[in-house]
Amino acid sequence: MSSSTEFSLAEAVAVLTRTPAALDALLRGLPNSWVYCNEGKDTWSAFDIVGHLIVGERTDWMPRARIILDHGEARPFDPFDRFAQERESQGKSLEQLLDEFARLRKENLAALRELNLQSEDLTRRGRHPALGSVTLSELLATWAVHDLTHLHQLSRVMADQYRDVVGPWKAYLGVLQCNGHSAP
Amino acid sequence: MSSSTEFSLAEAVAVLTRTPAALDALLRGLPNSWVYCNEGKDTWSAFDIVGHLIVGERTDWMPRARIILDHGEARPFDPFDRFAQERESQGKSLEQLLDEFARLRKENLAALRELNLQSEDLTRRGRHPALGSVTLSELLATWAVHDLTHLHQLSRVMADQYRDVVGPWKAYLGVLQCNGHSAP
Repeated sequence: MSSSTEFSLAEAVAVLTRTPAALDALLRGLPNSWVYCNEGKDTWSAFDIVGHLIVGERTDWMPRARIILDHGEARPFDPFDRFAQERESQGKSLEQLLDEFARLRKENLAALRELNLQSEDLTRRGRHPALGSVTLSELLATWAVHDLTHLHQLSRVMADQYRDVVGPWKAYLGVLQCNGHSAP
Repeated sequence: MSSSTEFSLAEAVAVLTRTPAALDALLRGLPNSWVYCNEGKDTWSAFDIVGHLIVGERTDWMPRARIILDHGEARPFDPFDRFAQERESQGKSLEQLLDEFARLRKENLAALRELNLQSEDLTRRGRHPALGSVTLSELLATWAVHDLTHLHQLSRVMADQYRDVVGPWKAYLGVLQCNGHSAP
């Protein structure tokens, strides 16, 4: 079974539902050396990534879904602030962020269910401020892949700490060859 | 805090301890379309990846640590079979594999603790059949980064299924630019 080209709301929700517990299992209680390490200047740590996911829950996915349903393409989405977590995570612990992410995700998935979206709703269009016309299904698929892109980033950020200490095995470890693709 | 260049056994164990629960939270109960999808011919699915991690627990990490401690460089490691899971996972469910991985990892970490390794032990050397002379600390660091490289792979394999359905957002999703680096 190779790539699918179909979007399924139930499939996307299955991923979205699992991300908070997966990040919790991976990160809660880890030594600070893993939690606050990054890949160098202007790159993100595990702490930054969880903060960014929280900002997405607050300002991106469901707010944009509602804009599509209420206004269609007439009202473009508000731009997403990719750096808001620098302010909003200040003074919080990783454990607080993990709890907050889990709570917001749960609330958002409950709100998504309440919309009771039908297949014709998924083709409705909105306007992204930079990308132009997009559909509701593209937004919801992106929500799920956005989780995966940050899991991908997180594994790379953590692995990077051990780039030297793995010695000659470096050649076999694909994650150490990943340069981040100029995006998470 | 950027890259560290030091290995800490406690830090590595902190990652190794968390991987089974993280994979469990991410994968258990997911629709088959996520579990069995891959990136095309001769590439791995989530199911294959968990099977591969099980083979590593059985034949790679702790067996090699014992070879280093018992024989040093005099006895090279047995080569690792990267494809053994194709046979060994046959007829099993993902849930069985997740349980098996969790059990084996727990047993291996208990065995590692029993070795009561001291810092001088970590510098002891063994011989990798292809890479040559390696240290015990390099082996143990690789064990942890190997978990992360497969988490990196898993997020990419899953994201690949939604490559088309995210529409123009594809440009923003780093995981969709990752080509796998000719390794996981």
